[in-house]
Amino acid sequence: MLKGNMVIGQSGGPTAVINQSLVGAILAARQADAIEKILGAHHGLQGIMNEDFIDLTTQDEAQLEAVAATPAAALGSVRLKPGKAECERVFEVFRKHHVRYFFYIGGNDSAETAYIIAEMAREANYEFCTMHIPKTIDNDLKVTDHCPGFASAARFVALAFMGDDRDNAALSGVKINVVMGRHAGFLTAAAALARQSDSDGPHLIYLPERVFDVARFQQDVRNVMARYGRCVVAVSEGVGDADGNPIASSGERDSHGNIQLSGTGALGDALAAHVKAAFAGETVRVRADTFGYLQRSFPSVVSEVDAREAREVGAFAVNHAVNTAEPASIAIRRLSSTPYASEYFSTPLSSVAREATEMKDAYINAEGNDVTQAWLDYAEPLVGDLPLIGRL
Amino acid sequence: MLKGNMVIGQSGGPTAVINQSLVGAILAARQADAIEKILGAHHGLQGIMNEDFIDLTTQDEAQLEAVAATPAAALGSVRLKPGKAECERVFEVFRKHHVRYFFYIGGNDSAETAYIIAEMAREANYEFCTMHIPKTIDNDLKVTDHCPGFASAARFVALAFMGDDRDNAALSGVKINVVMGRHAGFLTAAAALARQSDSDGPHLIYLPERVFDVARFQQDVRNVMARYGRCVVAVSEGVGDADGNPIASSGERDSHGNIQLSGTGALGDALAAHVKAAFAGETVRVRADTFGYLQRSFPSVVSEVDAREAREVGAFAVNHAVNTAEPASIAIRRLSSTPYASEYFSTPLSSVAREATEMKDAYINAEGNDVTQAWLDYAEPLVGDLPLIGRL
Repeated sequence: MLKGNMVIGQSGGPTAVINQSLVGAILAARQADAIEKILGAHHGLQGIMNEDFIDLTTQDEAQLEAVAATPAAALGSVRLKPGKAECERVFEVFRKHHVRYFFYIGGNDSAETAYIIAEMAREANYEFCTMHIPKTIDNDLKVTDHCPGFASAARFVALAFMGDDRDNAALSGVKINVVMGRHAGFLTAAAALARQSDSDGPHLIYLPERVFDVARFQQDVRNVMARYGRCVVAVSEGVGDADGNPIASSGERDSHGNIQLSGTGALGDALAAHVKAAFAGETVRVRADTFGYLQRSFPSVVSEVDAREAREVGAFAVNHAVNTAEPASIAIRRLSSTPYASEYFSTPLSSVAREATEMKDAYINAEGNDVTQAWLDYAEPLVGDLPLIGRL
Repeated sequence: MLKGNMVIGQSGGPTAVINQSLVGAILAARQADAIEKILGAHHGLQGIMNEDFIDLTTQDEAQLEAVAATPAAALGSVRLKPGKAECERVFEVFRKHHVRYFFYIGGNDSAETAYIIAEMAREANYEFCTMHIPKTIDNDLKVTDHCPGFASAARFVALAFMGDDRDNAALSGVKINVVMGRHAGFLTAAAALARQSDSDGPHLIYLPERVFDVARFQQDVRNVMARYGRCVVAVSEGVGDADGNPIASSGERDSHGNIQLSGTGALGDALAAHVKAAFAGETVRVRADTFGYLQRSFPSVVSEVDAREAREVGAFAVNHAVNTAEPASIAIRRLSSTPYASEYFSTPLSSVAREATEMKDAYINAEGNDVTQAWLDYAEPLVGDLPLIGRL
């Protein structure tokens, strides 16, 4: 048995349930003979390099439960792709602190980090197990049926569209809502769960998996307005033109080379201008909202399935590590949609690192401006029951 | 006793509980001998002029309860300030349909509409009672302690800041959140309820009641960054410079002469650019979100006090009308904050029409960049208990 201390860290964009995974891992580690001290790294790799740890070995359990129910990363997060020098420093710290287990909670960038570190340990013959614990509101990890964090963000998006569609029905006009999701449209597609009757919005859904053509968008909106006298649009922040260029952005990039799309209203305002141009000479109320960071960290809007699975994935990762000492990521297999049932399994780090996935064709309609029933069947059990819309 | 039919309509921006007032009024009217048919006007005055009514006299009660729990205006809303021709048309319709009672649920613009119609009835010697039922997330009606609709929106804003502050603590940087509120800062000020410890954001709160000075804003942000290494800012969409000009807007106006501030990310993006300029040459992550319409129509985020009072204000208006036949608006008097208790009273339409109110000086700190304890004491009982933030 590989015996020693463990480090756990959180990385990338926070979610509403990332702390469930943290607490699930901590509580499982407390039961594991192989694990001595449990060290939380502040701000992921950054904290490891700075030896900035918090000892979680005996932290009060009630306090941990409060943390589990609190959105965003309680340890602090980071967006950092380690180079050779950073990895060497990480190992220096791990050796110094007798760390034999490393758990990194994050998306595919974090899986890549975990993979690099696992490879370095192997080359250095340092007995060590690195685990990736999946989380991402984008739902874009490979192998797994879905990612912890997605369903809670999807629930926020569905509720937001449900209320905003009633708002739009009350005052009419065109309403554009920009939803997070850089390359994958899963979260934007969750807007479709808001519909409870034929005329309910969102009436149009644009995903980054399809080319966004401004002229077609304008025509789509004109068609919906002609039919319903109003139009609610869900559009992913990641939509791009035929050459893959964003429709509008601030131009800023992070250390993974990702361009900044969130935290700016640029795309919403650009699309609103396109709609106004499409109705030039007519009086049409056009508004755009960008849901922004609320989607991933709103307290009290959590999917029950998501909270439970996020917790269990954290525990599963720890148990896998102490039982096998094999570096891996954890994935979810759906056993049934009605009633919903799932199980967990391990998958090689290389299978989820770097490359992400996106919406399959079966989830997107032929016109590329809506989702299909197959998508709704996939998403509904994850998001859970939504309030019923009352109508006169 | 003035006996006849009643019309009820909804006007202005929707809220999460405006349908509670509608249902409260309908159920009270069913108990009132003076009221025969209960007609709901689709899209307020617009529906009245078009004789576009729905008969609510015998609508299923379970359906009404579902409507009460659904955000936004179930009858549809409108932004329309009636001129002489519109008022004459409204009376023509009222006479034709034997309407003796008119209930208009809305803000100060709607109170003004109710006032104009009441005056015309008096001049025309048409026996008639017009009532204004207050609602506004802006909380800017005169006379009343607070307005139905405000506390639920305030709860959304407090929760949003609570989660977003954890998000900002996880990834650091400067985060600017733009909150609704054209002239009054109440809703922006509700962001302060998110704080549960000294270092919690929002660290700066800018209200339309104070001049917004860009250079001072930049210095304030620099001060907070120096102290906490991060900074969360709450800013009202209505902030303006010393001459009263908006810092950024789209320039569009409605029929009340109100400039469009919501449904665009212009202000957030402008402020983010000012912050980036203040940190030129340094690496500081700056993001801006505009909460937009989600604040006023998000399902499942409702203040219990607000839902109850909105319901009771609707019923009180109907009872006042059938008992006195005196045109009036309804206001709320706070009897106690701990435990919270309130009562309702009538106030002349002229006392709430047209002019709105704003935050009193006692609620704003000397520097004009935060609220005071007096504000928290006022707002807390309305918004209700918030989830506790778990920390490691």
